Amino acid sequence: MSAYSEAIEICKLAKGAREKLCGIAASKKDEALLLMADAILKSQDYILKENKKDIDEAKSKRLSKALIDRLALDRSRILSMSEGLRKIAALDSPAGEIFEMRQRPNGLRVGKIRVPIGVILIIYESRPNVTSDCIGLCLKSSNVLILRGGSEAFNSNIAIFKTLKGVLEKMGFPCGTLNMIMTKNREVIGSLLSMNDYIDLCIPRGGESLIKEVIEKSKIPVIKHYKGVCHTYVDKHASLDMALKICYNAKVQRPGVCNAMETLLVHKEIARKFLPQMADLYKKADVELRGCNKTRAILKAVKVATEEDWYTEYLDLILSIRVVDSLEEAIAHISKYGSSHSDAIVTNDYESAMEFLSKVDSACVYVNASTRFTDGEQFGMGAEIGISTEKLHARGPMGLKELTTYKYIIFGEGQIRV
Amino acid sequence: MSAYSEAIEICKLAKGAREKLCGIAASKKDEALLLMADAILKSQDYILKENKKDIDEAKSKRLSKALIDRLALDRSRILSMSEGLRKIAALDSPAGEIFEMRQRPNGLRVGKIRVPIGVILIIYESRPNVTSDCIGLCLKSSNVLILRGGSEAFNSNIAIFKTLKGVLEKMGFPCGTLNMIMTKNREVIGSLLSMNDYIDLCIPRGGESLIKEVIEKSKIPVIKHYKGVCHTYVDKHASLDMALKICYNAKVQRPGVCNAMETLLVHKEIARKFLPQMADLYKKADVELRGCNKTRAILKAVKVATEEDWYTEYLDLILSIRVVDSLEEAIAHISKYGSSHSDAIVTNDYESAMEFLSKVDSACVYVNASTRFTDGEQFGMGAEIGISTEKLHARGPMGLKELTTYKYIIFGEGQIRV
Repeated sequence: MSAYSEAIEICKLAKGAREKLCGIAASKKDEALLLMADAILKSQDYILKENKKDIDEAKSKRLSKALIDRLALDRSRILSMSEGLRKIAALDSPAGEIFEMRQRPNGLRVGKIRVPIGVILIIYESRPNVTSDCIGLCLKSSNVLILRGGSEAFNSNIAIFKTLKGVLEKMGFPCGTLNMIMTKNREVIGSLLSMNDYIDLCIPRGGESLIKEVIEKSKIPVIKHYKGVCHTYVDKHASLDMALKICYNAKVQRPGVCNAMETLLVHKEIARKFLPQMADLYKKADVELRGCNKTRAILKAVKVATEEDWYTEYLDLILSIRVVDSLEEAIAHISKYGSSHSDAIVTNDYESAMEFLSKVDSACVYVNASTRFTDGEQFGMGAEIGISTEKLHARGPMGLKELTTYKYIIFGEGQIRV
Repeated sequence: MSAYSEAIEICKLAKGAREKLCGIAASKKDEALLLMADAILKSQDYILKENKKDIDEAKSKRLSKALIDRLALDRSRILSMSEGLRKIAALDSPAGEIFEMRQRPNGLRVGKIRVPIGVILIIYESRPNVTSDCIGLCLKSSNVLILRGGSEAFNSNIAIFKTLKGVLEKMGFPCGTLNMIMTKNREVIGSLLSMNDYIDLCIPRGGESLIKEVIEKSKIPVIKHYKGVCHTYVDKHASLDMALKICYNAKVQRPGVCNAMETLLVHKEIARKFLPQMADLYKKADVELRGCNKTRAILKAVKVATEEDWYTEYLDLILSIRVVDSLEEAIAHISKYGSSHSDAIVTNDYESAMEFLSKVDSACVYVNASTRFTDGEQFGMGAEIGISTEKLHARGPMGLKELTTYKYIIFGEGQIRV
């Protein structure tokens, strides 16, 4: 089958299921989620067998250890996929909420009702648990889902998909509710991304090159984040102890994720006191430091940070440090080099805190806390489908609510316009 | 200057003004709006003189009378532009609202703050008053604006722009706050639409071909509506009097606008009683009717509606009519031929009303009212910058709030992630 025919066939199935899926009771969707959680445990031998095929191929292709680790499933990872589905079942359903209802002088009642977005395409790489997370979140929010996983997890993704889709089939859900592109042909991506008459939203999850490809080709609205170059600015009015704790946590607790700090900005008036203590802590955790000249005047052993460093998401135990003359300089640095993801100030000064909050144009702006909190669960939203650094529709962690939109509903008693 | 250089120069100016504009007090923006309202009255001779150049050129090019009418300004149209600016000044400023603030178990306070979108590009055709409306709405919502008007209103748009920009200059606003592409070179549009690093949102306003061109070329998120093929469905449980009033209003009161009805759907059980009375009313208003075969069995003189008719936005005193067997058939017709703009049901049956509201996937869904109400002012939002049939960010009328987005703000006392 050509890439185009495969894409259009799935799109038609998906669009056909949209309206029917909305009509199914929320309780039946929750029941399906719980049965899926059971099914994934019952099918673990099958899923592990398929996963082994992917691992073997990855090893034969000499893929990196880190990548193979992200790819590999075991009984405990399958258990957390199952528990993830149970958690989603327990959340409130977002669709159907009526809000901003107001009565107009002519008696018309005008308001909004929360509705699913419609058909969502998710293009993702590596970790196979993304498959079950996305299936759970889209079913809960009544969105039809089209999945296109990475070729490195080809067999694992299909095994998880078939297991969960089996539950929906047995329960009589419309057959287009859940779809997966089961070919390694990359042309299908281009075809799918041109089908804006069928697909309402595309969420790419993966490396920068995948996301750039999607942006380049898509006629469908895309919500994404490229990367997280997160900053912590230690103000001259910071509590030293708090700054040490926060900056250590933001860099060291889990360096390989998008909300970890990549650049530390320090006010010159506190730098001499703060940086040596901070560097001691980082040294014990094996963090490599790269700094501007002012930093290197204080921390002699530190390598020089190049212009490229300031733009870099290390995802590793590496940190760039710049000493700044003022809050304004810190904000200007973030505006130039940042990725609009998560940035924090540590300060006890009210005015500095408020200025930072107001002027830093990132999805999540923190006062006196670690950027590592940027996460749907940490924010109290339950599960998340990703993080957005877009300006429109959703910014920051995206949970169930962000998988919905609204329409206006208007109740009249025969009103006409005069 | 090349199209690219012109576009990038304006984009850099615009982006540079973004942060500064946010820092200016709302009261100063309101003051500017009121001074603009004065300035436009004071400059009316200049604006009318420039407008006459456009009218003369339009006449020499033998453009349609309707187009020339939309293009033409007079003292009363200039007065309403001025009053529009005053009205915008009187509305509440949307930016700065803090909402959904919650405290997490670890004490973190997580919430959202409403912020301007950033830099907005508006590409529009014909009516010169769009220039002042957009300037007013973007200034009020603290968005930097780049305008690209149609060549037919070239001189009028520049005159209005210069008049209003003069006020901002005198008041010391950052010079990139308000920008207009002052060339007829169409290549500039393509260049602008590729500048997603500078421009956050594009709103095209005009005919379908303009909008298709923008969608085709844009790397920037676009909010738009192509057209309004609006339906009214008269249910078998409708009050006959109400249905006559609503269907007359939706078609006749102002046929040339996007929220006017283009297709009337009538349940077969009420058609014999309703259609002849309705047709009498339409006849008096010179409405041309085109119908399905079942309609023509009742209204003998009616022309046949072709497949193309059902897709057509007439914007004129023409109406297509279909008799349907059921509510489901009406909903299926709207789903196939509609434009997701505004659709209404007339019924006294609770279940039918609720089913229609739930299954029709349009920006505005009405029970027992005319679709002509789809309008920011009618909905109680003050002025509007356009209507969206997109699924994301904003659906239906877009007012000041829809020109904003949010960011997360997080207040801590040293919290770190464990």
